[in-house]
Amino acid sequence: MSIHWSWGIGVTMGVYIAGGISGGHLNPAVTLALACIKKVPWKKVPFYMLGQYLGAFVASVTIYFVYYDALNSFDGGNRMVSGPNGTAGIWATYPQDFASVATCIGDQLLGTAMLLCCVLAVTDDRNMETHKGLIPFSIGLIVVVIGMTYNLNCGYAINPARDLGPRIFTAIAGWGLEVFSYNDYKYFWIPVLGPHVGAILGAFLYQFLIGFHWSEVVEIT
Amino acid sequence: MSIHWSWGIGVTMGVYIAGGISGGHLNPAVTLALACIKKVPWKKVPFYMLGQYLGAFVASVTIYFVYYDALNSFDGGNRMVSGPNGTAGIWATYPQDFASVATCIGDQLLGTAMLLCCVLAVTDDRNMETHKGLIPFSIGLIVVVIGMTYNLNCGYAINPARDLGPRIFTAIAGWGLEVFSYNDYKYFWIPVLGPHVGAILGAFLYQFLIGFHWSEVVEIT
Amino acid sequence: MSIHWSWGIGVTMGVYIAGGISGGHLNPAVTLALACIKKVPWKKVPFYMLGQYLGAFVASVTIYFVYYDALNSFDGGNRMVSGPNGTAGIWATYPQDFASVATCIGDQLLGTAMLLCCVLAVTDDRNMETHKGLIPFSIGLIVVVIGMTYNLNCGYAINPARDLGPRIFTAIAGWGLEVFSYNDYKYFWIPVLGPHVGAILGAFLYQFLIGFHWSEVVEIT
Amino acid sequence: MSIHWSWGIGVTMGVYIAGGISGGHLNPAVTLALACIKKVPWKKVPFYMLGQYLGAFVASVTIYFVYYDALNSFDGGNRMVSGPNGTAGIWATYPQDFASVATCIGDQLLGTAMLLCCVLAVTDDRNMETHKGLIPFSIGLIVVVIGMTYNLNCGYAINPARDLGPRIFTAIAGWGLEVFSYNDYKYFWIPVLGPHVGAILGAFLYQFLIGFHWSEVVEIT
Repeated sequence: MSIHWSWGIGVTMGVYIAGGISGGHLNPAVTLALACIKKVPWKKVPFYMLGQYLGAFVASVTIYFVYYDALNSFDGGNRMVSGPNGTAGIWATYPQDFASVATCIGDQLLGTAMLLCCVLAVTDDRNMETHKGLIPFSIGLIVVVIGMTYNLNCGYAINPARDLGPRIFTAIAGWGLEVFSYNDYKYFWIPVLGPHVGAILGAFLYQFLIGFHWSEVVEIT
Repeated sequence: MSIHWSWGIGVTMGVYIAGGISGGHLNPAVTLALACIKKVPWKKVPFYMLGQYLGAFVASVTIYFVYYDALNSFDGGNRMVSGPNGTAGIWATYPQDFASVATCIGDQLLGTAMLLCCVLAVTDDRNMETHKGLIPFSIGLIVVVIGMTYNLNCGYAINPARDLGPRIFTAIAGWGLEVFSYNDYKYFWIPVLGPHVGAILGAFLYQFLIGFHWSEVVEIT
Repeated sequence: MSIHWSWGIGVTMGVYIAGGISGGHLNPAVTLALACIKKVPWKKVPFYMLGQYLGAFVASVTIYFVYYDALNSFDGGNRMVSGPNGTAGIWATYPQDFASVATCIGDQLLGTAMLLCCVLAVTDDRNMETHKGLIPFSIGLIVVVIGMTYNLNCGYAINPARDLGPRIFTAIAGWGLEVFSYNDYKYFWIPVLGPHVGAILGAFLYQFLIGFHWSEVVEIT
Repeated sequence: MSIHWSWGIGVTMGVYIAGGISGGHLNPAVTLALACIKKVPWKKVPFYMLGQYLGAFVASVTIYFVYYDALNSFDGGNRMVSGPNGTAGIWATYPQDFASVATCIGDQLLGTAMLLCCVLAVTDDRNMETHKGLIPFSIGLIVVVIGMTYNLNCGYAINPARDLGPRIFTAIAGWGLEVFSYNDYKYFWIPVLGPHVGAILGAFLYQFLIGFHWSEVVEIT
């Protein structure tokens, strides 16, 4: 359970640090979705994305060196993707045996769509008028709750940078190409593709259900 | 324990999303009680309730498909309401063996009355003047604490839509009519009836103890 | 751990409900200490205290009936204070075997002194200017942290009403006079006396270290 | 996990109490780093540091007496630094067997650098404009997340006063000089030196990446 709170608070801190300059973009799927509904200019999207993937890669390197001793003491220097001594799951996500391709795709679509609905709700001035300083807390809590409820099938990547960046790092750092070939090449692209599509769907869902209705609300009131 | 935080934060996010348009009505018992103390117009009540039951039903369908693989891997496709392989409790609540009918009714009355006292307190402008953007957090915390303390007897439904909607879904989706006949037909109606009555009692309790006294407080001060 | 969060959030909700009218007095030791530093008029103190003890007693009765079935299923109707089937600890606190009288007194003095320092800090307008709507959260967190750190010796009563009220109830409701005679009559009065003295010490400590210095700070600035 | 929340909320309360007068300085490494980037006048640094080490020492004495009975009941009065009955880790931190000197240094550098980046972000008026009353919460959460993620190697001291003060106390109070000689004298100085250097690095990192760019942001906007 610790891990869900850690991810959530980690996101809170990321938004606190980066919020003032870039608006706290940490997830390429969120950036893309916000561009689609015109809340972020398209010309900024490639730079944000580059930064997000680079950031996730640098963080992977850091974690590797901080826990290098612990890793060797655990697996004796023999890096494994899966099995009882498997450690690749510290970096990228891997699905449970029972989770089919369709389930993983649906899981990522839904999880990221939910993320976008929540993110748009807490940042929507016309909704609950959340104070700017509270937004990082709210977004952190969203990640906590998605973690607690969407962890079972394939570990709630919901962020392509957070999944692909570390996966590339582990491929280079000694775990080999099995990080991509795992489950017969039928997984690694799901937490990259799924969140992008899910985020766009979630953003339009919020706009159609709530965002576009404010003028009517104002008129009625 | 994770599950209590999940419900609580889930409610927080629901209120954030829906708060600006409908005032964040997610619970038909709360809606009914607020109508009784004239905080919601009666003509809106049937539409809110319809939406709440529909929403809970749609969420039940979603959870079913997201965890369809996990479910089959757990029970081999043989859906059971109770016993070691019972899974119906993922959707609706079921009482402990030791909990009598009277205990379950009292538990639901009290839990929902407490919910209403807390909800009215945090949304009462004249009390602690809680900022609008903080209200979803507070209501989420209320659900966390009721979850932690009222879980033992019959799983703190405290929301008829959250209990009856998923129960109807499981009846259709393969668990059969045992979801209603469980405990000799002496349970399924309790988390529907109990919260409605408890919420009304709780709302009037708050009004009599605190809500009606503000003018006097102002006069004294 | 659940239990520490429950107490904490429960206190948060109590302050939300009662905050606007009485200032959220739930603890007779805190009320007494605030009267000593002239933040509460003395004439109100007996009424607050009466309400606090009555409230704790009524809550004890409620808990007893809500969990009556569970209790009987656990101990077969034979109420015990201590031992493997002991249940009196659900209501009042009882010390660990290793904790001497001196340790329990010190523990209660210190825990309540810390509580008062924190309560006075978060409610002190001249300190961090905490918004009124956030105060219940802060006080709830204080109780969480005292619970997590002061639980070991004798279960962090730190509130005489929360300990003596339930103790009297259990004496009447079937546990008998052992709730007082436990540990050779050398415990039950500690969580009553200790918090009152500790709260007063804590209140004066805060005033001497911080509260009385604001004018100087203003002059220097 | 309880322990991470306790440290975090403890820091929150410390900042609430001391925030109004000194700005909530509890960590000599943070004080030094803030002096380096001119957010604290150099002449105040020695007084803050003295207070921080004294405070940590006094807290160590307090904890010793509160848990004196529990300690004796656990180790029979025979104080040990390490091994199954080792208790020195309640006061100062000790590294895991697998953690090399380089790992511990890197761990402390990184953890404290992260701490400073977060602290500067939440207290930076030009970033997310966090309300003063929320800052103690944010800083507490930072400590929670660092605790959850940096606990593995050597127990996230990240505060020289919180580590050296209690270590000196245990040396005096019966654990002897092994608290310094542990791991062949190759540990005790790391949580003192590492955080000072890490905090300065973190503070300059934040300034170069974000703090110095506000004027440009303003110009561009």
